[in-house]
Amino acid sequence: MERITVGFLGCGNIGCGVYKLLETYGEEIFRNEGVAFDVKKILVRSLGKKRSWNIPAHLLTDHPDEVLDDPEIAVVMEFMGGEEPASSYMIRALEGGKTVVTANKMALASNWNAIVSAAREHGAGLYYEASVCGAIPVIRAINDSLQANRITSVMGIINGTTNYILSRMSQEGAAYEDVLADAQKLGLAEPDPTADVEGYDAAYKLSILSTLAFHRHVPVECIYREGITGITPLDVQCGKEFGLTLKLLGVAKEEDGKIQARVHPTFVRSSHPLAGVSDAFNAVYVNGHACGEMMFYGRGAGDMPTASALVSDLIKAAHTKRHPLPAVNDVPCEIAEDWSCVHFVRMKAKDEPGVLALVSGQFAQYGVSISSMVQKGDRDADGYVQVIFLTHEASERAVRSALAALPAEKVCIGSIIRVEGE
Amino acid sequence: MERITVGFLGCGNIGCGVYKLLETYGEEIFRNEGVAFDVKKILVRSLGKKRSWNIPAHLLTDHPDEVLDDPEIAVVMEFMGGEEPASSYMIRALEGGKTVVTANKMALASNWNAIVSAAREHGAGLYYEASVCGAIPVIRAINDSLQANRITSVMGIINGTTNYILSRMSQEGAAYEDVLADAQKLGLAEPDPTADVEGYDAAYKLSILSTLAFHRHVPVECIYREGITGITPLDVQCGKEFGLTLKLLGVAKEEDGKIQARVHPTFVRSSHPLAGVSDAFNAVYVNGHACGEMMFYGRGAGDMPTASALVSDLIKAAHTKRHPLPAVNDVPCEIAEDWSCVHFVRMKAKDEPGVLALVSGQFAQYGVSISSMVQKGDRDADGYVQVIFLTHEASERAVRSALAALPAEKVCIGSIIRVEGE
Repeated sequence: MERITVGFLGCGNIGCGVYKLLETYGEEIFRNEGVAFDVKKILVRSLGKKRSWNIPAHLLTDHPDEVLDDPEIAVVMEFMGGEEPASSYMIRALEGGKTVVTANKMALASNWNAIVSAAREHGAGLYYEASVCGAIPVIRAINDSLQANRITSVMGIINGTTNYILSRMSQEGAAYEDVLADAQKLGLAEPDPTADVEGYDAAYKLSILSTLAFHRHVPVECIYREGITGITPLDVQCGKEFGLTLKLLGVAKEEDGKIQARVHPTFVRSSHPLAGVSDAFNAVYVNGHACGEMMFYGRGAGDMPTASALVSDLIKAAHTKRHPLPAVNDVPCEIAEDWSCVHFVRMKAKDEPGVLALVSGQFAQYGVSISSMVQKGDRDADGYVQVIFLTHEASERAVRSALAALPAEKVCIGSIIRVEGE
Repeated sequence: MERITVGFLGCGNIGCGVYKLLETYGEEIFRNEGVAFDVKKILVRSLGKKRSWNIPAHLLTDHPDEVLDDPEIAVVMEFMGGEEPASSYMIRALEGGKTVVTANKMALASNWNAIVSAAREHGAGLYYEASVCGAIPVIRAINDSLQANRITSVMGIINGTTNYILSRMSQEGAAYEDVLADAQKLGLAEPDPTADVEGYDAAYKLSILSTLAFHRHVPVECIYREGITGITPLDVQCGKEFGLTLKLLGVAKEEDGKIQARVHPTFVRSSHPLAGVSDAFNAVYVNGHACGEMMFYGRGAGDMPTASALVSDLIKAAHTKRHPLPAVNDVPCEIAEDWSCVHFVRMKAKDEPGVLALVSGQFAQYGVSISSMVQKGDRDADGYVQVIFLTHEASERAVRSALAALPAEKVCIGSIIRVEGE
């Protein structure tokens, strides 16, 4: 039998979830796993705040030292969120030889080298399953189950808020602003939704996932990022007519030694496993040279799903004698600045002879081959019609160059959306 | 740096896949994981047989002792298949303190207690990720990622052959026999398909999955089993009209301290994540009290996907100082003999006044409530019509009792298919 003394940094909903899980399911964990956990101190901002679970008052403190400097505390669990002071506290804990279990994607992705180095130099454990996709054990899958694979791509619906918004836009034909307002009312989107809808949250997660998948550090600053705020019901609808479903994907691929890492609205074929992932669910689709295609699906957020991953890491840390470090080598990561995929291009084109020839001529000049084209609806009052092109696989730079060279009075680009998972 | 000496039991396609993976990807594994593997001896039935990968002849032997009694061999990888002599060999290896990595669901499920006891008594490692669903890390998920969860249900498409057959029946409206013949031609079904189509293969896997999920040994003999040989295109088609997709599922649930474990054709709502799992793909859907719903999807068979899981176990074993045992307690497992679910009942009923009243009266008498009923097509030459009932959730015993009491000259039961994942 083993007893491990634990300290918390933070006690919002996730912290309360972890406390609740240890209190209500600790006996079963002890019976199955032979290990018990005592929570000794919990750092909070406000001692008197009402919480979602009844936490004994004597555990709470507003002095970080009471968690970080207590030699009895062997494991520090961090769920304060935000980059600072979380990062500094985690580094201090690691420097003191304590194991850190964190749910903080932002701190981890933003300070990857500093945090991992602190763990390495002090032989301390660093566990972060909960930092990406809540309960879904995708970190464990990449680190512990797919080690015998050269992973060629990772594509994920790794933000629940945007997936909820796009699912409803697709089901109802609703406008982005209306669904966002609803999601805010339901607590599925923040009052300031920027981090979700502009893809920042997904970029942090993709940085962690791709770093582990490709064994080279992929800094979050190197990730191409495009949010969903410009998506119109017309895009969603036109995609449907081509058999495509719109998702905000994190896409990471390794091709010719270069890594593509990008977060953007993406069409996937409606028969693709990612297309069926609706509402606030998350899923990560991985391709490995031996395992083939895999997908991991589940609840990517929420107090108890996140607590499930955190307590799993806690148990794993307790069972581990020599803590593993991320298998990331020092070869600098070369980030691709261009990539090839199918492109969905929606434009308004002047409904007059020669305009389509002009557009297709431009595409041809840049080596972009068209797979299909439809004209949608009648001409508007100004004499324009909506035209949608689907290209064959083509370099993004070529597609954008071809479109940039079109005369503005003849053609007005509505949207360029990448298609993945062909 | 660590070098581990490995012996193989068997060298069919999976064994060749493992050898190939170690040979072609061993350097990367060494760089990422700091461990290298030397294959010293390979037990085969026939020394001269042509194999799918070029294996040096001096490694091959037809004497099991050369693998099992060699003190240098630390890890024995078993992929001979079949219950014996695989089980005896694995037990001998464990008794000699060697770690066993196996892909053999049949041996493991049939001799669970003997194999696990040998591992426990001799402190030897036992790894079996590849025994269930090939590359999909579902064993790792249950054992290492969902430890903080009371798992309430496990439902899986855990046999690729039957999923291929049912997917094609559903897509094409084809008959079972025709698709089976095609699958046999394509090598997706065995010349004698019994183990797959009658659900034996799925039952072995479900025994292992449910034992781990519920922490109590669920013997394979206790699993209710029903194959797909009786499924008609009419069932598939009628299900579709109710928004249901037919799958062969392994279903395991814990309710009121009793465990249900059953393999049978099952309808799931077409919007359920399992419904989208087509062709030979596998997926396991798990429900936990903290994590909520999860699904793990991928290639459940094939040389390289299975080799991916085997080599992953090999690496895991190499990193582990104290080998984990399955967290299964000694409480005997009480198997439920009845269960509740929605039932799809297709029957031929005499097209005359009073017959529907008779049927619905019977259902009412046994407390089975009807959720919908449709009559399909015209009366046949004998004066019967096809009628399909969908019940509300009801005890299976009650449904069967109600139907058994119907007069054979009025009603002829076509099929009773359970509906899960509501």
